[in-house]
Amino acid sequence: MNNIKKNQWQTIPFTNVKIDDPFWNRRLRVHNEVTLRACLEQCEKTGRLANFAKAAGRQKGDIEGMYFNDSDVYKVIEGVAYSFMSHPDADLESEMDQLIDDIVAAQESDGYLCTYFSKKEPEKKWMDMGNHEMYCGGHLIEAALAYYYSTGKRKLLDAAFKLVDHYEAMFGPEKRHWVAGHEEIELALIKLFQETGQERYWKLAYWLLEERGRGLGKGEQWEKEGWGNPYCQDDVPVREIVKVKGHAVRAMYLYSAMADIVGITDDQGYKNALDRVWENLIQRNLYITGGVGDSKHNEGFTDDYHLPNDTAYCETCASIGMVYWNHRMNLLHGEAKYADIIEKEIYNGILSGISLDGDRFFNVNPLELNGKRHRKEWYNVACCPTNLARFIPSIGTYIYAVRDREVMVNQYIQGSTTFELHGAEISLIQQSNYIREGKAELKIESNASATPFRLMMRYPGWCHSARVFINGLEQQGLQVEKGYIVFDQIWSNGDIVTIQFDMPVEKVQAHPLVKSNSGRVALQRGPVVYCIENADNRHLELDELVITEHSSLFIENDPNIMGGILAITGRGKDGNSFTAIPYHLWNNREPGFMQVWIRHERNERLYSI
Amino acid sequence: MNNIKKNQWQTIPFTNVKIDDPFWNRRLRVHNEVTLRACLEQCEKTGRLANFAKAAGRQKGDIEGMYFNDSDVYKVIEGVAYSFMSHPDADLESEMDQLIDDIVAAQESDGYLCTYFSKKEPEKKWMDMGNHEMYCGGHLIEAALAYYYSTGKRKLLDAAFKLVDHYEAMFGPEKRHWVAGHEEIELALIKLFQETGQERYWKLAYWLLEERGRGLGKGEQWEKEGWGNPYCQDDVPVREIVKVKGHAVRAMYLYSAMADIVGITDDQGYKNALDRVWENLIQRNLYITGGVGDSKHNEGFTDDYHLPNDTAYCETCASIGMVYWNHRMNLLHGEAKYADIIEKEIYNGILSGISLDGDRFFNVNPLELNGKRHRKEWYNVACCPTNLARFIPSIGTYIYAVRDREVMVNQYIQGSTTFELHGAEISLIQQSNYIREGKAELKIESNASATPFRLMMRYPGWCHSARVFINGLEQQGLQVEKGYIVFDQIWSNGDIVTIQFDMPVEKVQAHPLVKSNSGRVALQRGPVVYCIENADNRHLELDELVITEHSSLFIENDPNIMGGILAITGRGKDGNSFTAIPYHLWNNREPGFMQVWIRHERNERLYSI
Repeated sequence: MNNIKKNQWQTIPFTNVKIDDPFWNRRLRVHNEVTLRACLEQCEKTGRLANFAKAAGRQKGDIEGMYFNDSDVYKVIEGVAYSFMSHPDADLESEMDQLIDDIVAAQESDGYLCTYFSKKEPEKKWMDMGNHEMYCGGHLIEAALAYYYSTGKRKLLDAAFKLVDHYEAMFGPEKRHWVAGHEEIELALIKLFQETGQERYWKLAYWLLEERGRGLGKGEQWEKEGWGNPYCQDDVPVREIVKVKGHAVRAMYLYSAMADIVGITDDQGYKNALDRVWENLIQRNLYITGGVGDSKHNEGFTDDYHLPNDTAYCETCASIGMVYWNHRMNLLHGEAKYADIIEKEIYNGILSGISLDGDRFFNVNPLELNGKRHRKEWYNVACCPTNLARFIPSIGTYIYAVRDREVMVNQYIQGSTTFELHGAEISLIQQSNYIREGKAELKIESNASATPFRLMMRYPGWCHSARVFINGLEQQGLQVEKGYIVFDQIWSNGDIVTIQFDMPVEKVQAHPLVKSNSGRVALQRGPVVYCIENADNRHLELDELVITEHSSLFIENDPNIMGGILAITGRGKDGNSFTAIPYHLWNNREPGFMQVWIRHERNERLYSI
Repeated sequence: MNNIKKNQWQTIPFTNVKIDDPFWNRRLRVHNEVTLRACLEQCEKTGRLANFAKAAGRQKGDIEGMYFNDSDVYKVIEGVAYSFMSHPDADLESEMDQLIDDIVAAQESDGYLCTYFSKKEPEKKWMDMGNHEMYCGGHLIEAALAYYYSTGKRKLLDAAFKLVDHYEAMFGPEKRHWVAGHEEIELALIKLFQETGQERYWKLAYWLLEERGRGLGKGEQWEKEGWGNPYCQDDVPVREIVKVKGHAVRAMYLYSAMADIVGITDDQGYKNALDRVWENLIQRNLYITGGVGDSKHNEGFTDDYHLPNDTAYCETCASIGMVYWNHRMNLLHGEAKYADIIEKEIYNGILSGISLDGDRFFNVNPLELNGKRHRKEWYNVACCPTNLARFIPSIGTYIYAVRDREVMVNQYIQGSTTFELHGAEISLIQQSNYIREGKAELKIESNASATPFRLMMRYPGWCHSARVFINGLEQQGLQVEKGYIVFDQIWSNGDIVTIQFDMPVEKVQAHPLVKSNSGRVALQRGPVVYCIENADNRHLELDELVITEHSSLFIENDPNIMGGILAITGRGKDGNSFTAIPYHLWNNREPGFMQVWIRHERNERLYSI
């Protein structure tokens, strides 16, 4: 096992990555200043925080809200812990310490921890696999690890260990079968293994994965709703998975955990299943925004190529799950196509879930709407805001990875990282305005006189042509391997690699089997998908705009739109002008229609692109 | 008539346009230093020059070569005259004076001038409409006008007047019918009208055009070869033309003359015919290189969508003819799509006709070849080298046009022009490296304090998105009209308009009815079409390379290829690397295979561009 691990790509953790990026600085600042506080306030207002004090007997009153609400609190703690790594905050930390004190006090003596079933329906403990008890447990573990690493305090982590001991006492090969109704615990257990080195944790996760698809799962909710076992990926043993099915967030978490297992055990059955299901998802079940899950009914997948725009579910959490999964696939395979998907998610389907001001959210991210829905401050089911709360501060996770004498640059986000490579201290400094200009510039600093390593810089999947310079000299004979431009050479301190990716506006077409997009195109520039929105197009109605193959487009930096954005402007067939904005910025002003896939008229042309 | 003319776009003649462009400087220098001299030497070596002295009785011996060889000499004189405008050369001028002296001496007393029939077969004078007598006459007129304007010497011009007097004495409504077997005289007569103001010249041209398609044409050659009347556009009256037919150069010259007539008479029948036939050509009969004429048999057009690559004729002269025609269409309609075609021609199908060193030529420009053909120093039928000799120095013709308070910028070629606009002296100075970088920068200088005019800058048809700055400030609310970005404002001295056209490499597909390009793409960047050639791809054979939708491409400035070119590099499906070069540069090294349309494999993708 250790042998496998040595050849594996290791991500450079976001704690080693400094971000100083024109795009992300604002999002990270708003996250710290607004989002975390907003989430905590909502958790307080909705009784989520008090539930722990109540379960601990420290406060009177009934448990409030859904049976999985504990998880939201854990996720906010995780996000707060991440924020401490760059922005320590003594007041907030003391607030968290108090909250953690309540959480730990709410844990039962046998280790059980789930305030809803502890206090409100204790007779239902471990009675229904759909009850999210382990889902909450998983988030507790992740929060505990984060809080321990950022503060050094292990109170919550001890509770997590105790909780897992409880699981181990209850479940396992010789004990009791269990299909975790909403995956998450598996990820958390593997993370616990990765941090502690204790193999029993990943083995418990592996066992939980292997429980699936064997007729063991029983859940009142998913039977009642008629979703059946596919809903929580319990229809076939996981190594037999061929097609994405069921609830999208659940599926993403499952695939992420399976990828972790491949990293540990090199399980070829898992590996093949993941490769299959990845192709199935990417080729037939992915919205252009990175959204996954086309149906509100099961919050998940239906038929291949069924990708309606107005009724798209595309849960924010599912897009975050796509990043988790694709990040693991990238490290397993060393292929850029997975990092392409991460890029698609972070610039589209994830950020669309949060307002520019950081305190309003979308759980659901359709690609077309006729003006009825607006962002909310909170949801009864608040998984998405709280997932954003922990995801955004960890964005640095996805930028760099290393292996032996190889370095991968997966995302072009300004900032720097420093790491050791065969005894040399290497710093990589990114200076570019990639998302606006298509430029990626990497400076290599080293304390060694000459540092040989293979530098792999992602050639983005959306890009069709690029120019490359080293120290200002244009390069020849460039090669792309597994989606990376490879520079295998001895680097000197101060070397600068500059890549200019051509980043025109593209009119993207969908596969002809995607009926909802027939005769339509989406406008995309680099990884950013655009949409037209009422606020910029008051003279238009939904679906009125028709653009043609001849439509000339402009990229216009409009300082009047949300403080300055790169809009795409042009004229439709009827001469109507239109303005498109990045999809991730929609619904930040008054509600109104929004549309990603715009009607498009082909001309009879001899040559087309 | 004068009313119409006032509202018409007027080109700024190349004599008012200074070119100082990284791409064109080299071509213009080589033209002056090499091409003109090479053409003169070949004309001498092949007896073309001596034919005049022989016809004049100044030299012994038989007339040599083809019956239309006089035209080559006239075209070289025209090219030399153009070169004098920027590069006066007293020795060369004296050489030309002597030659002109022979030409004038060869003219018969009644005005007849065609050395072959004068001396070798006088019994055939005006006996066969296919004998190019008026074709030669047309080129004499154009050369005479050019020489007069560049040197002030009117000896050749007087001969031209005398020649036209002869035509008028022979042909006309009450005299004799005539279908000029190879169009050219019509263009020349209209030019003569434009320079002298004498209406009889354009009226003779109009009459000649009207003679066509009425069963009057008779030519031994075209009957013998079985081409029939369509060969020289004599199958239908010109105002009834629907489809491009026959010999391509002839067709281009005809349409050019018809467009001139529309400019003079506003003849709606001609206008409609031209609009129809232009659409027919552009949508169904144009090679991506700008080449026209798919068949060697008739050196011209066959069926719609019949565009074979290896047997493509695509005569250099026909591409030059396309520029003549599209230039006139642009001035008539004020639409950029015609200037797009000019751009396509000058960066592809025309320049491919001449070597980088300026002394080797292609009459025929196929899009695929298996290494057998190589450029030649000269051809028995030398129309193409001599057309290049006069075309290249006049490239400045196609850059600017003006009308009342409107200015069009049609080509982005560095340099400047100065003209008067409503009393103000305006200079436009282009500073950019458009063909390499996609950037167009125009500085406006004016001696007036504020100059209102509508500036129209072409938005190239190949381009899908652009950014625009005025004096460094990014612009909003941009509009495109008739293919131009329109800036309607009051300009100040020193204002700078900068346009950054996105110029990625594109994989272009042909219409599905073009069978030869099925399952293939051509690589194009901006207006420049690329090809793969043996010299850069010795590990490949013709048609071996297969690229895929996922192929990552690089733009590489390779100083080792012909002194430094922007190559496109990538890898094929099989991992083979390849290098593509601009099509206009092919066959400048050792002969070998060449291919524009490369095999292409589509992947099953959910989204494609």
